[in-house]
Amino acid sequence: MAEQGITPRATDYSQWYLDVIAAGELADYSPVKGSMVLKPHGFAMWEAIREDLDRRFKETGHVNAYFPLFIPVSFLSKEAQHVEGFAKECAVVTHHRLRACEGGVEPDPASKLEEPLVVRPTSETIIWHMYGQWIQSWRDLPILINQWANVVRWEMKTRPFLRTSEFLWQEGHTAHATREEAMEEAVRMLHVYESFAREVLALPVVPGTKSASERFAGADETYTIETMMQNGWALQAGTSHFLGQNFARAFDVTFQDQNGERSFVWATSWGVSTRLIGAVIMTHSDDTGLVLPPRMAPVQVVVTPIWKGEEERARVLAFAEEVRAALAPHVRVKVDGRDNLKPGAKYFEWERKGVPLRLEIGPRDLEKRSVFAAPRFGGGGKFGIAFDALVETVRAKLDAMQADLLSSAEARREARTHRVASYDELKARVEDGGFFLVPWCDDAANEATIKEETRATLRCYPIDAQAEAAGRTCFYSGRPATHMAIFARAY
Amino acid sequence: MAEQGITPRATDYSQWYLDVIAAGELADYSPVKGSMVLKPHGFAMWEAIREDLDRRFKETGHVNAYFPLFIPVSFLSKEAQHVEGFAKECAVVTHHRLRACEGGVEPDPASKLEEPLVVRPTSETIIWHMYGQWIQSWRDLPILINQWANVVRWEMKTRPFLRTSEFLWQEGHTAHATREEAMEEAVRMLHVYESFAREVLALPVVPGTKSASERFAGADETYTIETMMQNGWALQAGTSHFLGQNFARAFDVTFQDQNGERSFVWATSWGVSTRLIGAVIMTHSDDTGLVLPPRMAPVQVVVTPIWKGEEERARVLAFAEEVRAALAPHVRVKVDGRDNLKPGAKYFEWERKGVPLRLEIGPRDLEKRSVFAAPRFGGGGKFGIAFDALVETVRAKLDAMQADLLSSAEARREARTHRVASYDELKARVEDGGFFLVPWCDDAANEATIKEETRATLRCYPIDAQAEAAGRTCFYSGRPATHMAIFARAY
Repeated sequence: MAEQGITPRATDYSQWYLDVIAAGELADYSPVKGSMVLKPHGFAMWEAIREDLDRRFKETGHVNAYFPLFIPVSFLSKEAQHVEGFAKECAVVTHHRLRACEGGVEPDPASKLEEPLVVRPTSETIIWHMYGQWIQSWRDLPILINQWANVVRWEMKTRPFLRTSEFLWQEGHTAHATREEAMEEAVRMLHVYESFAREVLALPVVPGTKSASERFAGADETYTIETMMQNGWALQAGTSHFLGQNFARAFDVTFQDQNGERSFVWATSWGVSTRLIGAVIMTHSDDTGLVLPPRMAPVQVVVTPIWKGEEERARVLAFAEEVRAALAPHVRVKVDGRDNLKPGAKYFEWERKGVPLRLEIGPRDLEKRSVFAAPRFGGGGKFGIAFDALVETVRAKLDAMQADLLSSAEARREARTHRVASYDELKARVEDGGFFLVPWCDDAANEATIKEETRATLRCYPIDAQAEAAGRTCFYSGRPATHMAIFARAY
Repeated sequence: MAEQGITPRATDYSQWYLDVIAAGELADYSPVKGSMVLKPHGFAMWEAIREDLDRRFKETGHVNAYFPLFIPVSFLSKEAQHVEGFAKECAVVTHHRLRACEGGVEPDPASKLEEPLVVRPTSETIIWHMYGQWIQSWRDLPILINQWANVVRWEMKTRPFLRTSEFLWQEGHTAHATREEAMEEAVRMLHVYESFAREVLALPVVPGTKSASERFAGADETYTIETMMQNGWALQAGTSHFLGQNFARAFDVTFQDQNGERSFVWATSWGVSTRLIGAVIMTHSDDTGLVLPPRMAPVQVVVTPIWKGEEERARVLAFAEEVRAALAPHVRVKVDGRDNLKPGAKYFEWERKGVPLRLEIGPRDLEKRSVFAAPRFGGGGKFGIAFDALVETVRAKLDAMQADLLSSAEARREARTHRVASYDELKARVEDGGFFLVPWCDDAANEATIKEETRATLRCYPIDAQAEAAGRTCFYSGRPATHMAIFARAY
């Protein structure tokens, strides 16, 4: 794999992002338009995300299941807003066989499907069809199911991790007897996402609700976590939807309550995707390459032995193995004992792969029974650690690095959250990026005009800021404010 | 969910299988022809399989990655046997948008793809295209990648878990510098599958090689593990392929060796799927429902508290929780504290879900600080366990139950492996099921005739039996035997 330079952020932020991905060997372009290949290091990041989130889902009472990849087109049409939202980006299966033709193979016309199938862009329709079979009475509720799956939303303009035709995600789909319970669930999962993003990914996300125009197709309310990239743009990192009774009505899913009355079932759905990897890259990485929060790093510590000659090699490797064994119960550690690469080349590689802590071991360290620690970020340079203090020091350093990433990201977000007084001020400053927190009178037409004129979108009504709206006037229309809103350029 | 009777095996083995799946809430039919829904209990079995196998793959040096779901049709054609093998069962994507039409939506003709895409039936072609970009020199080898994914092979006649259009699996794809190394890898993974099947699933599989007619489309050698169902039919439970240089030639993947010479890369691929769940059901279950080997059971021990009245309830539940907490570090345990179900109904449900050990706790057990254990299978009836001996006794019992399932299955296989002397004998007995182990002279035409006349197929050349072939004559042709072969009816 060819060596790859990294364009500095200041020169070209978009190119920098692509370079970090290539240099870190996270993903590669594929011959299928819009699809990418998740290379082992990138996929390991997804595994780390999946493992931690899956535990959080199970702790909140959810179980996993698996529903079909294909959805009959007629299902999509059953919920009017849903089909409106997804029809334009569906991969459609029309045949089930190939036949030989000049120069290759082609769909066999004799195998044309009576009803075409779409590759799931999301699974509400097929899942609510099944829930219709499974739910008869209040005893069958709630259903708290999550699915880890691939989905396809056809995209013309793609960007690795952030926007691809096929992506990996999880989608929770829950069914409840009451409106209140469904609402509670939607909010609970928003907070699961929020804590996961803060604690594991070091992303200081802003939880909020979406305006009607930005809601999921088929939802009564969409909750979102929005996060700020280093260029000041926003990224929607996860959503949780209160679906009301919309899908229950579309698929005629009712239940008998304890009084013998039948009502429609209440629903939520919620999801995060491989997009989170894009958020992590864009939030924390630097001009040297990938920077990973220790808690999500597939490898947290890499031990790089340095030797000259066979005899030294054996001794250094033995000590490296001792170091690995001491750390292994506590952190994800790996010894890089490759003998066809010089130490400098190894450092270079692990830096670009974002491994938080490198421990160098040379013959002199061996004598002192100590290692030399080189943190990937945070300044302060290298420092020695005595073997006896190894576990404690390494764990403390990783914790400190994790906290450092979160507080840096938080400080950046604070510094670039602007409380502008007028629409003119937003227009003047929007090119520089940042979150614009403004009093706002909910109005879809005004929202569309602002998007048109500034390319900034209404990211969310941040939950924590709503009290501020009282008694203020909308920065755009001058009418009484209904919300505090964040506008920003977004990926 | 409606209550579901289970047809006895003796009455109708096929219906029994479907009934066990329904009663155990493992899977459900979906509105998409050929696709099934994996319900939470069935999916948890897949999670248990995935977790254990994934650890074994990583221990043998493999990493996970993810490649696109869609494959351009032209890729399939590049390997002649491969396209021959898969063209007849491919879901083909031809459009990327829907448009409104009378009564719903239809593929938008304006969105027709220039080149149709197939939904991967397996990923050799797309992966070897990528390996072509990644491999330049011997330093880039070996590549040891595995992928957990969904695949689609269009099926007209389906059976849950055993044969469905979409299924979940893992596919390993490795690239090597030498023929020997690739061969070693193919055999290594065969043995990983074999030990996993024996140790975790309690399946006494027979490892062997496939005859040329039963090989994977594009392989030079296919290794298989074959296992016997309770009706004496065979099931192919996993395969590992030595692909030679076939895919490297098709996708022009060469590397420069240490002497500066270029050669084609050597390949393997290997996979197991949700089919393993079908094998477990058909091997171990009984007329009461699902039986699960303890090591793969998502819940190994269920604690069912029994009480009358509120005061008793609180005390019994408190002790049940004590029992759970004591066991939790060692086994997967769950308390069934539902108060809208009578104990008998709970027993019935957990029996049908195959939970190996049920611990009943009533008020009298409380006083004695003991529990009453009811094993799901193995005879011997219920027995008491004092709290102090709980962990030790439960672990020993689960281990014994695991061993018991394996030895029963092994005994059944031994009893029904027939060394028949002539083709007439095979024809006379084949209806009764069983493995027919015979001396055989490799011949594709004879193999086809036997299949035609008896519906028995050549399952494998069992590795351990090959020495026996020396000096014997083929049971069918009378020519000198080249192999010992197993013929059997198969799923």
